[in-house]
Amino acid sequence: MKAYHELEKRFQELSCIEHAEKILAWDEAVMMPGQSFPSRHQALSYLSGHYHERLTRSDMKGLLSAAEQESLSDWQRTNVVLMDKQYRQATCLPKELVEAISQSRSACENAWRQCRAKNDWQQLLPLLEKVFQLTRESATIQSQAFSLSPYDILLDYHSPGLTQSVIDPLFDSLKQQLPSLIKKAVKQQQSALPPEGPFPVDLQMQLCQQVMSVLGFDHQKGRLDTSHHPFCGGTARDVRITTRYDIKQFSSSLMGVCHETGHALYEQQLPESWLSQPVGRAYGMAVHESQSLFVEMQLCRSDAFLTFMAQQLRQTFGDQPAFDEANLIRLYRQVQPGLIRVYADELTYPMHVILRYEIERDLFAGEIAMSDLPAVWDEKMKQYLQLSTDGNDSDGVMQDVHWPSGSWGYFPAYTIGRLIASQLFESASHSLPSLDDDLGCGDFQSIRHWLKQHVHSKGSSLTLDQLLVSATGSTLQPTYFIDHIKQRYFELD
Amino acid sequence: MKAYHELEKRFQELSCIEHAEKILAWDEAVMMPGQSFPSRHQALSYLSGHYHERLTRSDMKGLLSAAEQESLSDWQRTNVVLMDKQYRQATCLPKELVEAISQSRSACENAWRQCRAKNDWQQLLPLLEKVFQLTRESATIQSQAFSLSPYDILLDYHSPGLTQSVIDPLFDSLKQQLPSLIKKAVKQQQSALPPEGPFPVDLQMQLCQQVMSVLGFDHQKGRLDTSHHPFCGGTARDVRITTRYDIKQFSSSLMGVCHETGHALYEQQLPESWLSQPVGRAYGMAVHESQSLFVEMQLCRSDAFLTFMAQQLRQTFGDQPAFDEANLIRLYRQVQPGLIRVYADELTYPMHVILRYEIERDLFAGEIAMSDLPAVWDEKMKQYLQLSTDGNDSDGVMQDVHWPSGSWGYFPAYTIGRLIASQLFESASHSLPSLDDDLGCGDFQSIRHWLKQHVHSKGSSLTLDQLLVSATGSTLQPTYFIDHIKQRYFELD
Repeated sequence: MKAYHELEKRFQELSCIEHAEKILAWDEAVMMPGQSFPSRHQALSYLSGHYHERLTRSDMKGLLSAAEQESLSDWQRTNVVLMDKQYRQATCLPKELVEAISQSRSACENAWRQCRAKNDWQQLLPLLEKVFQLTRESATIQSQAFSLSPYDILLDYHSPGLTQSVIDPLFDSLKQQLPSLIKKAVKQQQSALPPEGPFPVDLQMQLCQQVMSVLGFDHQKGRLDTSHHPFCGGTARDVRITTRYDIKQFSSSLMGVCHETGHALYEQQLPESWLSQPVGRAYGMAVHESQSLFVEMQLCRSDAFLTFMAQQLRQTFGDQPAFDEANLIRLYRQVQPGLIRVYADELTYPMHVILRYEIERDLFAGEIAMSDLPAVWDEKMKQYLQLSTDGNDSDGVMQDVHWPSGSWGYFPAYTIGRLIASQLFESASHSLPSLDDDLGCGDFQSIRHWLKQHVHSKGSSLTLDQLLVSATGSTLQPTYFIDHIKQRYFELD
Repeated sequence: MKAYHELEKRFQELSCIEHAEKILAWDEAVMMPGQSFPSRHQALSYLSGHYHERLTRSDMKGLLSAAEQESLSDWQRTNVVLMDKQYRQATCLPKELVEAISQSRSACENAWRQCRAKNDWQQLLPLLEKVFQLTRESATIQSQAFSLSPYDILLDYHSPGLTQSVIDPLFDSLKQQLPSLIKKAVKQQQSALPPEGPFPVDLQMQLCQQVMSVLGFDHQKGRLDTSHHPFCGGTARDVRITTRYDIKQFSSSLMGVCHETGHALYEQQLPESWLSQPVGRAYGMAVHESQSLFVEMQLCRSDAFLTFMAQQLRQTFGDQPAFDEANLIRLYRQVQPGLIRVYADELTYPMHVILRYEIERDLFAGEIAMSDLPAVWDEKMKQYLQLSTDGNDSDGVMQDVHWPSGSWGYFPAYTIGRLIASQLFESASHSLPSLDDDLGCGDFQSIRHWLKQHVHSKGSSLTLDQLLVSATGSTLQPTYFIDHIKQRYFELD
């Protein structure tokens, strides 16, 4: 196993470079003063170039071939497959194209901030077109190396194993069932008293730290801070999550922290002895989103946990009628179609993702042009959520950073993750009959252990299908999510 | 200038690695959760190995020789000299010795924490002996490459240009004059009312930020945080200073921040276009300490600034008799010989440094043995400050981390820095007749500009002698500090 051991050593070194990159990126978002950006940008560019140089050293190909011939354990073998994939991803693109993509993204993301503020789609269009063309060029080159269509290359890049042929039937099923459920929920829902603020930031911070502890975040291996956009960063051994605070309401910081803690638990419960190797990492963004949504949507928005949370809110902010358990539950069951994805509720959220997915897919298939986007967007918005952007593209096609920053193929991860979360939850509920009681008293030990055993400890050693079959007995099905919605919103089993 | 430009590019890249190292080191001290230490240690070891590898590439020697033949500006020529010095420092030691030193320091520093707490010198002795022997071995090898004695190698490493022959007469002069001044000051001093706390930490933080702004710290290129040991870290473009807060008194956080802001202003006013090159960096620790002590001791403890500070204290903490201007000035003029260096006042501090310097010097000369240290320490302490450790080595030879961590040759920088500060201040006062009035209303613009012009903007382009001659008209003299003491404590001009 001489070649294999040399490869492990090299990926251990690569993980050191990544450690530096991840902590510097966190620092940039959370700590760094504004004018230090140029020197930080230089340092991060150097590190990313150095990472690429080490990953693509001339003898890597030989080592990978040699290791494939060695006698390896299953995990070691999968590790080599993942190393090889990473190596091929890094080597199959010409350097000039990689740099052109990086520059076009940077320029477009900057322009997007201004164009969105001014609602100026026409100014953004040529820059977005360029990002798209270069991304498609790169995906087309990779599609030959990996025998996938260009759009599948992008899907697989963010969420390994996810392809159009997997997504289409799942999203078709949601499209058939969700619209009528949304209508019904809107019609039947009971109004709820809104909590009355202000909610002092220091008290919100204290509550968030408490809730993280309840969920099982290991504060000795990570921390919570404040940033403009909430995220989960850092490394598996030092998970840095962030949130933001609004004195007028506590819900976005609280539920944001529940969400990010879901990501963090995945990282903190990855297999300790494999953390520096590709096989020990989290399995792409769809599974990552499934873990944040499992914790936020399945656990923290359950009746049982909201009942527990009602006490915490009273203890933190003092009593008020809105903190009555039944009212709190009604509050977190409000359904309201809206234009903005990030504000969407559990029922309407998938329709936002499906809309974006269909546009991406059709763009890559050449069936629509970039200049059609505002019209196509509006048409789909009317069809799926009976809303119109009315020419306000800032709340339409320009609302997300994903496309300007070149993250084509990312959006499906949100809804695929949501489906995974429901399927896992169904299975966990069967294994843990006292789960509801546990959540009601803020005891996450057994569910955290279940997630560790069935998801987190697997790292990247299983494909998504293997993971789901092993944890739930079947590959991904949309029915668990739909059943969850029916049960939670209409109490139909 | 082909070779020179290639060297500049390489040192620009090295500065990117250093950027990562510096921010990660800051993060470790200020932000990092406890259990993340092993992975951070690995990442930092990787980066330091990578830095060494890049600095010592096989063609560096040829590039340095070629650049020496090219037509260069003065700054470029000095830059090559400093590059060459750094290259030779990195290449002249065998790798095994560098690793053995690093391990012995790490082991000794860990043991020191326990031995100091238990007052167990005998347990520390063999570990400290090992650090000393290995450091001497390394300095002896370097002494051949650089034509300096082993102890001078260490002095020069921390503070370029500082040698025993420079220090001896300066310290002898202080030894002759300070003891009688200390006795006189203790005898004549007027008692002062101590401020009555508590002083809430959030108010102390607010005051520290205000004072930093008054001193001219650029908050867009740096920040203040809290750590166990105050320090100035980060990079010149992103200066991270820290302090610590004690609710019972505000003085240590306030004066600590004045001190660290002095370091920070040096970094923030270094020559912008040379920051990534050796010639654009700060000129070693003696000059760095001169800048922190200039701001803390010369400016912030002046009668004029303490009068300004009295208002700030009243505004922050409310009025109390101790905040009367005359009382506040008396408070910052208290002189009291003590066992601990870091608590020492302006008059007794140099005696602590001289004691350590003489011990280091005599150890390296083979005139005393490591096992003699407690006895030698106590003897000198009795002689210089009329105090005895009475066998309490925790407050004697074990009080500082410097020797266990291998920083032999560092201590003189504190007092040489103090002498530089007084000499610079004398010169600045002549150039700026309104300085006292400016300090009295918290206006640091002209003095900051003076420091930029005469010290900060020089980077490492001048030697210490050149810097002082250019800024003050003479090489380093102890008389300016002695005169400052006489003037401040006895009002004798």
